[in-house]
Amino acid sequence: MADTRLTRRGLLGGAAAGAAVAALPDAALARRRRRRTRRTEVVVIGAGLAGLTAARDLVRARHDVLVLEARDRVGGRTLNAPIGGGKVVEIGGQWIGPTQDRLSALARSLGIGTFKTYNTGSNIYLRRGVRTPYASDGPLGPIPPDPTGVADVAGALAELDRMAREVPLDAPWKAPKAKEWDSQTLETWKQAHTTTDAGRFLLDVSCQAVFAAEPRDLSLLFALFYIHSAGNERSPGTLERLTNTPGGAQESRFVGGSQLISIKLARKLGHRVLLDQPVRRISQDRHGVRVECDRLVVEAERAIVAMAPAMTRHIHYHPALPEQRAQLIQRYPNGSVIKCEAVYPEPFWRREGLTGQAVGDADPVRVTFDNSPPDGSPGVMLGFIEGEQARKWGSRPAAERKAAVLRSFAAYFGDRMLSPTRYIEKNWTEDRWTRGCYEGYAPPGVLLDYGPAIRRPVGRVHWAGSETSPIWNGYMEGAVRSGERVAREVRAALRGRSRRSAAA
Amino acid sequence: MADTRLTRRGLLGGAAAGAAVAALPDAALARRRRRRTRRTEVVVIGAGLAGLTAARDLVRARHDVLVLEARDRVGGRTLNAPIGGGKVVEIGGQWIGPTQDRLSALARSLGIGTFKTYNTGSNIYLRRGVRTPYASDGPLGPIPPDPTGVADVAGALAELDRMAREVPLDAPWKAPKAKEWDSQTLETWKQAHTTTDAGRFLLDVSCQAVFAAEPRDLSLLFALFYIHSAGNERSPGTLERLTNTPGGAQESRFVGGSQLISIKLARKLGHRVLLDQPVRRISQDRHGVRVECDRLVVEAERAIVAMAPAMTRHIHYHPALPEQRAQLIQRYPNGSVIKCEAVYPEPFWRREGLTGQAVGDADPVRVTFDNSPPDGSPGVMLGFIEGEQARKWGSRPAAERKAAVLRSFAAYFGDRMLSPTRYIEKNWTEDRWTRGCYEGYAPPGVLLDYGPAIRRPVGRVHWAGSETSPIWNGYMEGAVRSGERVAREVRAALRGRSRRSAAA
Repeated sequence: MADTRLTRRGLLGGAAAGAAVAALPDAALARRRRRRTRRTEVVVIGAGLAGLTAARDLVRARHDVLVLEARDRVGGRTLNAPIGGGKVVEIGGQWIGPTQDRLSALARSLGIGTFKTYNTGSNIYLRRGVRTPYASDGPLGPIPPDPTGVADVAGALAELDRMAREVPLDAPWKAPKAKEWDSQTLETWKQAHTTTDAGRFLLDVSCQAVFAAEPRDLSLLFALFYIHSAGNERSPGTLERLTNTPGGAQESRFVGGSQLISIKLARKLGHRVLLDQPVRRISQDRHGVRVECDRLVVEAERAIVAMAPAMTRHIHYHPALPEQRAQLIQRYPNGSVIKCEAVYPEPFWRREGLTGQAVGDADPVRVTFDNSPPDGSPGVMLGFIEGEQARKWGSRPAAERKAAVLRSFAAYFGDRMLSPTRYIEKNWTEDRWTRGCYEGYAPPGVLLDYGPAIRRPVGRVHWAGSETSPIWNGYMEGAVRSGERVAREVRAALRGRSRRSAAA
Repeated sequence: MADTRLTRRGLLGGAAAGAAVAALPDAALARRRRRRTRRTEVVVIGAGLAGLTAARDLVRARHDVLVLEARDRVGGRTLNAPIGGGKVVEIGGQWIGPTQDRLSALARSLGIGTFKTYNTGSNIYLRRGVRTPYASDGPLGPIPPDPTGVADVAGALAELDRMAREVPLDAPWKAPKAKEWDSQTLETWKQAHTTTDAGRFLLDVSCQAVFAAEPRDLSLLFALFYIHSAGNERSPGTLERLTNTPGGAQESRFVGGSQLISIKLARKLGHRVLLDQPVRRISQDRHGVRVECDRLVVEAERAIVAMAPAMTRHIHYHPALPEQRAQLIQRYPNGSVIKCEAVYPEPFWRREGLTGQAVGDADPVRVTFDNSPPDGSPGVMLGFIEGEQARKWGSRPAAERKAAVLRSFAAYFGDRMLSPTRYIEKNWTEDRWTRGCYEGYAPPGVLLDYGPAIRRPVGRVHWAGSETSPIWNGYMEGAVRSGERVAREVRAALRGRSRRSAAA
């Protein structure tokens, strides 16, 4: 079954990250051994983009840093998978688009180039058995011009964009209509503001593709915040930018795969990054913070927890978390997505004048992309199983799911899709250190009563991760920005300490 | 500050439960010591009503059982507080009403009597400064006959009751309109089906009082299921039964306080109940289950986790939980409530012809009860801070909160309420082993995609707790029923094993 399940042993060998600690089969056994104690200034928990960016900035500012990572690899929700010949495809977050300035600068600084997502020719729209090619550079971007639904969905998208701009990015709960919008689901709004079956289907697919959740799962206020957040300070986000390939969040890809950013960051941090160190407990008092793993204790002045909010619940805190934070992280679930990729000798859809992008109801895959390497060889077709479909298909046998995905691909691009040379999938809900992607989202009522707790420090513990970012929330860009922000936050706290000791 | 915060050292001394393990100040220190290993047939995690009922039933069926409790007391979300003279008031769940048959039978079997909640005279309704007494036995029970809102709210309640009966208690996600109802919040439904400000206020208060959450937090489908569940097999639940005193869920109280049920159950179980044993890890394979605390390891054939779903996330599972369960417990938050009680020399409102029950907008307390002991001495006024109010007031200084609560009491019952002889409160969100009451609830979309995981066993691990009960979900009755159900489930599994070994 080597083709159906990627093992989690990533690209990053022990030597690459300088992590000398071997994986142990049984954490319980390990806990019985004596634990080492190490001291540092700042301990970072989580070696995804947020944690590694924070560590880089702190090291640059000449602080002592240790990064603890639960997995046997770095990169968090980014993950490269080998497809032979030294090439990789991403089975986690992968794209970069306009206004994602900090991610772009980070990649550039590491010598990692980008290339455009393949977008030449027509996209495919398949609905109720009717397969329609459409121009990939149409006015709605990847949203197909369904004759019965296009006006409906275009009107809805425009209205969502307009409302989104009323949501303050640093405090969505202060929007003039925050209470009204956080009291309903996106589904409720959809039912009231669309009229056609096709329009509703297209809005559903947009929601599933952006949030890996259903419109019924999301607070309308959260969805609007998220749309607004998909831009930088000069160019506010729109739903079109979230869903677009050219000019949008799927515009470009990284040469060598997006995980390479984290791998290179980790190489620079060297011995400061420790893998296979799940954190069990964080305690703090006025002297410092103490972070306990099974075989290691780190004592520091400050801790940065760079994880999705829902996952921060797996750590025990002493003293107990303040109640707003404690209840927030009961209420900020992760989305549901299985990323599926099939490898073919060549991307033969290109010769048929197709981009490889499809939108349709050939479940379980409703959205596809050409995910071939930069040189177009081999051909890689990428499909997402998202939201309800992911929840339904995640527990089915792998072979059954693979067959269903290939049938979806065949419905969009023909029967040649049924015979890939390789099939790779990653169910992020199944991953015990992630438990869902793309990101944490807020159901109704959460932003209103718990919003401020998302990045408010708890004593010496600071929070990072893409979910804490007012800009490109939920994206790699948001993760990088959160890392930069938390590094500034911690540096200010450490400077405060220096001033206090100087005054004493 | 002995009057403002109840310490968690409960009524149950070490001798009472036979728990000989002393509390340790630092779990980290404790973990370094060598852990004892004990073997049993069934290990129960959580010594609330669900876990203790399950243990009792299994012991009766001659199984070996150990019960592990994280706290230094039994009773879970029930908790007695002394008020002097050997008397107590409850600062957790406390009432019993008609159709709560299993709780009633359990209390009777333990020799614990009940008495009627004080309900003689008039209730108080206070809205926008106008204070109106009204008959406590009116047609809407505790819901005040607000002249502008009563027809509105009565219509809405009747419609909710009618819809509730369409929700199958054992599978709410199979209701004919499950998708429509789980796609919206109770708030959305309220906005569409009420027309008056007063009617909406009364529906808000009902929701806050029943769920300790706001209408915007709840899935309409979940709210309907919960209403339907407030009855037994012969008499389906209604919102009126949930909110009523006579004939409803607040009808009667337990002599000696509701926690006495758990205390007496634990006494019977004796040395089988171990306090101060927070479970960190549950691992299982085909031979058995292994439950790890800081100083103790229990090996058993089956484990019962009798905790609110959200709290089961604090345990690490090996192998990792199946994905539907893993994502369910990211999405099933606990409500928010602070229970506040003020003690007076006598219940002087009784002499004024008042029941002590009030409903009104004198925030933070919107609902009150006379909670005096059976003999009416001393007088105890009980007020709830619920939902949004609890989230707002929980983090304020205790003295400020106490003053605000007493001002609420005074607005309902006069200035004598400002000078109690004692003040007791319990913020269940702050309690690290509870993190919210009264119960876990489902936001939109959760029942539809995750509902079946609420009580589906995971290998050798079985789930109990009131949230798993189709009957009186969220109440003590539901907890007892879940304990009885899980004991049957585990006994069947153990019988299966015996048959297999006999056949081998």
